[in-house]
Amino acid sequence: MSLLITGSIALDSVKTPVEQHHDLLGGSASYASIAASFFTPVNLVGIVGSDFPKRYIELYKKHGVNLDGLQVADGETFRWSGEYEWDMNKRRTLSVCLNVFETFQPRLPDHYKNTPYVFLANISPQLQLHVLAQVERAKFVVADTMDLWLEIAREPLLELLKKIDCLILNESEARELMKETSLIKAGRAILKLGPKFVVIKKGEHGCLLFVKDLFFSAPAYPLEDIHDPTGAGDCFAGAFAGYLAKIDRVNHDTLRKAVIYGSVIASFNVESFSLGRLQTLTQHDIAERYEAFRQASHFETR
Amino acid sequence: MSLLITGSIALDSVKTPVEQHHDLLGGSASYASIAASFFTPVNLVGIVGSDFPKRYIELYKKHGVNLDGLQVADGETFRWSGEYEWDMNKRRTLSVCLNVFETFQPRLPDHYKNTPYVFLANISPQLQLHVLAQVERAKFVVADTMDLWLEIAREPLLELLKKIDCLILNESEARELMKETSLIKAGRAILKLGPKFVVIKKGEHGCLLFVKDLFFSAPAYPLEDIHDPTGAGDCFAGAFAGYLAKIDRVNHDTLRKAVIYGSVIASFNVESFSLGRLQTLTQHDIAERYEAFRQASHFETR
Repeated sequence: MSLLITGSIALDSVKTPVEQHHDLLGGSASYASIAASFFTPVNLVGIVGSDFPKRYIELYKKHGVNLDGLQVADGETFRWSGEYEWDMNKRRTLSVCLNVFETFQPRLPDHYKNTPYVFLANISPQLQLHVLAQVERAKFVVADTMDLWLEIAREPLLELLKKIDCLILNESEARELMKETSLIKAGRAILKLGPKFVVIKKGEHGCLLFVKDLFFSAPAYPLEDIHDPTGAGDCFAGAFAGYLAKIDRVNHDTLRKAVIYGSVIASFNVESFSLGRLQTLTQHDIAERYEAFRQASHFETR
Repeated sequence: MSLLITGSIALDSVKTPVEQHHDLLGGSASYASIAASFFTPVNLVGIVGSDFPKRYIELYKKHGVNLDGLQVADGETFRWSGEYEWDMNKRRTLSVCLNVFETFQPRLPDHYKNTPYVFLANISPQLQLHVLAQVERAKFVVADTMDLWLEIAREPLLELLKKIDCLILNESEARELMKETSLIKAGRAILKLGPKFVVIKKGEHGCLLFVKDLFFSAPAYPLEDIHDPTGAGDCFAGAFAGYLAKIDRVNHDTLRKAVIYGSVIASFNVESFSLGRLQTLTQHDIAERYEAFRQASHFETR
């Protein structure tokens, strides 16, 4: 089954204590699409400016991402720049230039409208709702969000939660959304706001899946060297949704696996800047790391 | 196989935003001994004052804890008091009165000296070394520690690390010990200081086990209401060591299980103040929660 993905497409400038790179391919939709492409065909909806490098168009195409929903507008592409500390959990945004993204009105090509699986990657909840309104007969809708929207767009976000199947968000966002220090309470409380499934990403601590009658905790992969954490959450969510679209069956078993596949792809992505590592990633690599996750969390019955 | 446990025995006063209790049974050796008693016979080494309540002596005895190594000294028992915020990860120590503990010189009764498994619960590394020096032919030695000793007793702690098989410490202590923000790097670096096994406790994020050729990540139990986190780490370590002593076999399989049993007992202990919950705990409860941990972390092969 194919997967519709909308979100941001950006040119990122990223600085770590070790390296610094400019105009890298970034944005939630870019990371999510390439991550999902390892599992299922992707229909991308997004916007770039006339300065968007041809090599990035080629990169999408190489991964079989359908670009019929990609608008190329007059003006410059959305740009983000950020800096990481030695503790890579700590990031500072240096600048955000929305550029063509400021007036983005997502339009779904007609042949996208029946895409059965939908991933609304991180953009404003208003845009996520706008895309969702154009989708017909979706079987499963996943959305990601970020702290900014909890602050400035709480109402549309709460409206969105009633219309989606699964919310993915990170640890601090979950606590902030529910004003709750316990992640367990926060995760279970979000279920009452609409989504049947909630995934809380905890970075180096792995992630948690909440369903009414299931709690699942996935480990993080024990990486010693993280080169660039940018996009890890987007890759997680893209691979999570991509795997479910591929399998076309949402149950406790497939949800657990989807969480692990999401963690697998995210763990590869942080090994280099931008989408560098995913360019050379093979199905064999994925299989091997999936097994490493099993080794890291498996224990026998009593 | 029986397990020798030394550490502190205290009368605790604990305040949470909801409740407050005085002169509860506490101390690292108390928590560890009762936790371990669900798996194996325990030989306790510690000191109390002449004010130590008889009912706590009875409590140890009820759990089959051998008290031949318990010194009763003239003076008052070690007292600790602390306060938790709503976020129970945040604790403030209000007072520490060492009392009879200040001049404690652990003496092992002769029939303790051949105890094959040893758990050095949290006390100063000097006292841990002092106990260890009296032990003959131990098969497996586990030690716990705390942030204070990293600051004021780093040298004896480093000496201790060369003489033990397994170190258990918490997340912030691991980062502090190795001056390393990455827990993965910290865990692996500690292995180079002596212990063959390192367990890093992460509270609500579960815990990690590092062995030269094994990395294991255990989830935390999804508790919504934590009544008193005091002693959770001591219970974890006591049950971990107790299970290994019971099984009398240390390999990847039993280490993984020991981590889970440690997590099981700790998860029960935080359900009420002091050792309250462990007073009514049954083997059936333990088996049931072990299975819940499996459900929370199990996923199928690809």
